[in-house]
Amino acid sequence: MIIHMSRNAEPAHEQAVFKRIEAKGLKYEVIHGTTGTDVIGVLGDLSGVEESYFSELDGVEKVIRISKSYKLIARQYAKDGQVRDKETRAIRVGDATIGGSELTVMAGPCSVESREQARAVARYARGMGVPIMRGGAYKPRTSPYSFQGMGAEGLAILGEIREEFGLKIVTEATGQHRHVKPDGTQEDRTVLENVVAFADIVQVGARNMKSYGFLQELAMLTSEEQTPVMLKRGESSTLEDFLLAAEYIVANGNPNVMLCLRGIRAFEESKFQRYTADIGAIPVLKRETHLPVIFDPSHSTGYRRNVEAVALAAVAAGADGLLIETHGDPTRALCDGEQCVTESQLRAILRKANALREALRQTG
Amino acid sequence: MIIHMSRNAEPAHEQAVFKRIEAKGLKYEVIHGTTGTDVIGVLGDLSGVEESYFSELDGVEKVIRISKSYKLIARQYAKDGQVRDKETRAIRVGDATIGGSELTVMAGPCSVESREQARAVARYARGMGVPIMRGGAYKPRTSPYSFQGMGAEGLAILGEIREEFGLKIVTEATGQHRHVKPDGTQEDRTVLENVVAFADIVQVGARNMKSYGFLQELAMLTSEEQTPVMLKRGESSTLEDFLLAAEYIVANGNPNVMLCLRGIRAFEESKFQRYTADIGAIPVLKRETHLPVIFDPSHSTGYRRNVEAVALAAVAAGADGLLIETHGDPTRALCDGEQCVTESQLRAILRKANALREALRQTG
Amino acid sequence: MIIHMSRNAEPAHEQAVFKRIEAKGLKYEVIHGTTGTDVIGVLGDLSGVEESYFSELDGVEKVIRISKSYKLIARQYAKDGQVRDKETRAIRVGDATIGGSELTVMAGPCSVESREQARAVARYARGMGVPIMRGGAYKPRTSPYSFQGMGAEGLAILGEIREEFGLKIVTEATGQHRHVKPDGTQEDRTVLENVVAFADIVQVGARNMKSYGFLQELAMLTSEEQTPVMLKRGESSTLEDFLLAAEYIVANGNPNVMLCLRGIRAFEESKFQRYTADIGAIPVLKRETHLPVIFDPSHSTGYRRNVEAVALAAVAAGADGLLIETHGDPTRALCDGEQCVTESQLRAILRKANALREALRQTG
Amino acid sequence: MIIHMSRNAEPAHEQAVFKRIEAKGLKYEVIHGTTGTDVIGVLGDLSGVEESYFSELDGVEKVIRISKSYKLIARQYAKDGQVRDKETRAIRVGDATIGGSELTVMAGPCSVESREQARAVARYARGMGVPIMRGGAYKPRTSPYSFQGMGAEGLAILGEIREEFGLKIVTEATGQHRHVKPDGTQEDRTVLENVVAFADIVQVGARNMKSYGFLQELAMLTSEEQTPVMLKRGESSTLEDFLLAAEYIVANGNPNVMLCLRGIRAFEESKFQRYTADIGAIPVLKRETHLPVIFDPSHSTGYRRNVEAVALAAVAAGADGLLIETHGDPTRALCDGEQCVTESQLRAILRKANALREALRQTG
Repeated sequence: MIIHMSRNAEPAHEQAVFKRIEAKGLKYEVIHGTTGTDVIGVLGDLSGVEESYFSELDGVEKVIRISKSYKLIARQYAKDGQVRDKETRAIRVGDATIGGSELTVMAGPCSVESREQARAVARYARGMGVPIMRGGAYKPRTSPYSFQGMGAEGLAILGEIREEFGLKIVTEATGQHRHVKPDGTQEDRTVLENVVAFADIVQVGARNMKSYGFLQELAMLTSEEQTPVMLKRGESSTLEDFLLAAEYIVANGNPNVMLCLRGIRAFEESKFQRYTADIGAIPVLKRETHLPVIFDPSHSTGYRRNVEAVALAAVAAGADGLLIETHGDPTRALCDGEQCVTESQLRAILRKANALREALRQTG
Repeated sequence: MIIHMSRNAEPAHEQAVFKRIEAKGLKYEVIHGTTGTDVIGVLGDLSGVEESYFSELDGVEKVIRISKSYKLIARQYAKDGQVRDKETRAIRVGDATIGGSELTVMAGPCSVESREQARAVARYARGMGVPIMRGGAYKPRTSPYSFQGMGAEGLAILGEIREEFGLKIVTEATGQHRHVKPDGTQEDRTVLENVVAFADIVQVGARNMKSYGFLQELAMLTSEEQTPVMLKRGESSTLEDFLLAAEYIVANGNPNVMLCLRGIRAFEESKFQRYTADIGAIPVLKRETHLPVIFDPSHSTGYRRNVEAVALAAVAAGADGLLIETHGDPTRALCDGEQCVTESQLRAILRKANALREALRQTG
Repeated sequence: MIIHMSRNAEPAHEQAVFKRIEAKGLKYEVIHGTTGTDVIGVLGDLSGVEESYFSELDGVEKVIRISKSYKLIARQYAKDGQVRDKETRAIRVGDATIGGSELTVMAGPCSVESREQARAVARYARGMGVPIMRGGAYKPRTSPYSFQGMGAEGLAILGEIREEFGLKIVTEATGQHRHVKPDGTQEDRTVLENVVAFADIVQVGARNMKSYGFLQELAMLTSEEQTPVMLKRGESSTLEDFLLAAEYIVANGNPNVMLCLRGIRAFEESKFQRYTADIGAIPVLKRETHLPVIFDPSHSTGYRRNVEAVALAAVAAGADGLLIETHGDPTRALCDGEQCVTESQLRAILRKANALREALRQTG
Repeated sequence: MIIHMSRNAEPAHEQAVFKRIEAKGLKYEVIHGTTGTDVIGVLGDLSGVEESYFSELDGVEKVIRISKSYKLIARQYAKDGQVRDKETRAIRVGDATIGGSELTVMAGPCSVESREQARAVARYARGMGVPIMRGGAYKPRTSPYSFQGMGAEGLAILGEIREEFGLKIVTEATGQHRHVKPDGTQEDRTVLENVVAFADIVQVGARNMKSYGFLQELAMLTSEEQTPVMLKRGESSTLEDFLLAAEYIVANGNPNVMLCLRGIRAFEESKFQRYTADIGAIPVLKRETHLPVIFDPSHSTGYRRNVEAVALAAVAAGADGLLIETHGDPTRALCDGEQCVTESQLRAILRKANALREALRQTG
């Protein structure tokens, strides 16, 4: 960490900084600037020290972190802090390996709406070789008047599908509340409890990426089984905050985290795109962390007609997997129908995505 | 709602739209465009109908909502849907009336760090006539390695202060998890339960604005007492989503919601501002809803040196209240010290803010 | 265009709207809403009519454009307004065809710094089969104290290279000012005149995308020769504004415009990415216009280490070409060295990009 | 400047950095980190040295500028580099002093549309004590099919008004092109020449803030008369870039620059606000530079109904002046009518703004 003292800093200000440094068991060196401005370099393990610990002191102009704020998930370090692990963490879910040599595709409807709808999707997805089905039983909706998901009943349907088609299931835990059923009563257990008990991969949605207490409790609940967690990036979250949210889960006992990129909020025009696909984040994450990186092209653009182009771009940029919304009849979807691709569109995406992955392997 | 059919839409596509309209008990009229493009106007109560209900249909090019998506909190309607209420909802908390003729200032530290620290702030805030103290017992922190708040112990300190100084307390419910104490064990009750049982105003932080299940359960828990809730805007939330989040709380039984604006995420440079203060949102919210509008200048800029200017701007633009971070010794704050104003800065802000409010009243 | 009258609109307000509609020779129909709100559909050729022509009238709540604001460059129409052209406009530059079946790569240094530097790049780029070299003789720089380009002398060097290596040249016209030489005197002709007289493709930089008078004069100057123009997207320009800027050039006489996407300004962290690559804009532009779409991965991320991933993503998403910064020794570049790829990196990008393009063709 | 070497940097990399430092006549000191990471502090006058000069070198991880990139306009330094000037630069235009103790209001229509329209505005503005009238003769328009301004004829009308009403005129120089008249021919002189010859204050629009060659030539053209220049912030320009654009003008001979803030591009919803008013930029600019700061509430929100609130916020935050669009009959304006305030609205804004300014002075 580099502490830049202001031009008007007094010796006492500098002393206060030194004390804080020493209070943390750290060391320092000082560069005395020719114009009377000093720069203090802080040395040692700074992972638990925030910039504000120093920047709030009088006489401090700017504090710059040089070491990383996350450590367990950083590519350089294994958990013991000594050995470097250069490899992407491979997370096995059934027959699939997320973060391995193959591209992993997870596909399915935004939400489970009925047994028929879900089975129809499962059948054609399975037929294309998709190993993991996505489908929401609990849905976070912007309006209190919108369909909020089938709840435990939806999980039950997903459970049947898992049996029948041999698919693994990724589904979202939207919080620690008890879902309100259509009759106005609440389910017996919390959403988190229900989903952790059921899912092969527990999804944390973009809206909860910064619900840190929730992340912590999710990690503790899954720490024994080490159920894989798919953490989605908040729509305006920086990559540093995204990585730190993953660090929360790993630090609380569950190392099986995969990062899922989705559209960010920029200044897009809603008639063309609902979100901005942050493709450039892929090489950044691949460098910063050993966690696998999934890309969600559906929530990256918001329109079915753009999904293929964005999905292929993510594969070309190095994503380990794709999370795609599909629906047997998108025009009848109860939520997000506009971004669901059809069966034939999904087939085309898979064919092209695999061809791109193969082309990259051969020229790599 | 206006449905614009695409140039290539077939008659069957249009029929499908008509069916969906009728399925909701709504009516429609059609404008036949000269270039073969039809526009369908949907008439009736559309508050429960999303754009995607139509936009996902084949042949539909664009759907435009004209009526508002929120209704209970809209300025035009009282809860019975008949009477219009033009007045801002006045929410009483102790002697203060939020949304009344006076500017309400809530001030206090980011987090409760010790009895001494909290009492010191309470004393000078009370001395300046501040009626409501803010202070976090549970703190959402970006890094898992940062101070996460004192938890129930912090609430106990705030309780003593409430007694001693006659201040009312606003404090944040960060979720429905059980707080992890320094010894690694969890508190007995959830954060939500603890805060609802304690606070005069329950704060929902920006990170939880879209945790809809949490909002719903908070509303149900407080529906009897109608404890005031202060809902903060998510850092990249649109105003429409912000209003709908408030609608969630009101629709689930608690009408005493105040909206709190804070900085949004734009492209600010961190050396100058941490967030962008969205002052223009004040007149928009004042027009759209009858709920009171609070402004948080501290989280709108991130630096103490800009807080006064932004606070005064908010007052001039019509905010009903201010939420300000202050600390007896900001350079020793355990969190967000950079944006805490000192005692003397707070005094200056209050003096000037009241002068501006008075000047506006006289020239109004 | 759809005009939504406000709930409080009076009959006179509506009459005023009708008059404005008729004044433009347009027709209208009215939908009388059940709640007293009227919606007016405006019919006819609205390409020259702005939303504000109506929205500024009293009683008007909202105006929504349905028809497109651009027409000459829209995919549906040929210039005579009758025939539809479905094909991307193929622009020939030497042996290359931009917008044809092959991917076109333009590569070269940010700026021409010396004969040696430029020749070194030209040699290896030509050796890899790159048909068009980029290189700035005039450089727009954020600081007045930075190297501003070699000016006419730089153009002369590019001219020698064109001869020696058979490369075509794309270079930027930064404005209509006269470049200030190192000795403080100005060049005889304007930058625009010099570049138009020299370049095979005239580049308009992101900073000038909205300098409409400049676009107009550029179009008039090149209307006879129809010299191809590469228009870069402004860093915070909407796609609609980008398309309208292209329309300015075409409407003033030069139909040979190619669109070049580059990074947009979102909330990226400078340590990871300097800009956000808007990959999702590629399918949007390909649908909206027949103009070819080029992608600049260098100015989309700002760091050499991310360029390959972003370049390949653009190819996978359907870009017609790439514009890449390369330098024989990036660590000695006088400008933007951080985003210049090396010779071997460029070779790898070309190999992989062509493999992806081929894989897509085979699976298309 | 602080140079942080990467963990893998070799001694030769560090030597290369030292050489570059010495090549500029600068000095350095090194902090040897305990984990093998070195930090190099560069000392001396770095105003002409960009971060990339070092960051492009191998082995360099990050370069952080600590000194400012602008110097002539920085608050600390007078032009000779020795004397500090703490005072805001006062720029006199007729009887008004921009940057003095009084708030300066400039008001007028977006564009001059006719003698009658312009005179009507001039009359009521003058009547309210407005000293400077704004009005565009040349208008940058997003669509090539929109009204582009009256050109030289508009300037002539503004000239008559200047005489008749004793108002000073601020008007925009949109570039160095020659305006195309309605008959298709071009004016004899460039827009820049015409405006510089006429205006009391030359406005540089947001779209041209980064047209550096244009800024340079404008500065040279006005360096003798030192005609005041009002530089508007680009809609996605950082404050650092904004300040550097002002530095361009001052460094090329004209120190009479005032900065004008306007809305920035964030993620606003067009139905509520067209742009985001960056009020927090006011205290930042007031601290960073001695140039006066003007605020344009009209282009900060885009809707007449929000203009008063935003204008008053700017005054409360410390702006030296306001630039307001007004029109005798906004519903007939040929451009931007939606954001023009009426005569009575302008009167209310002036009354309240002056009351706020007075209240601040008394409590200051």
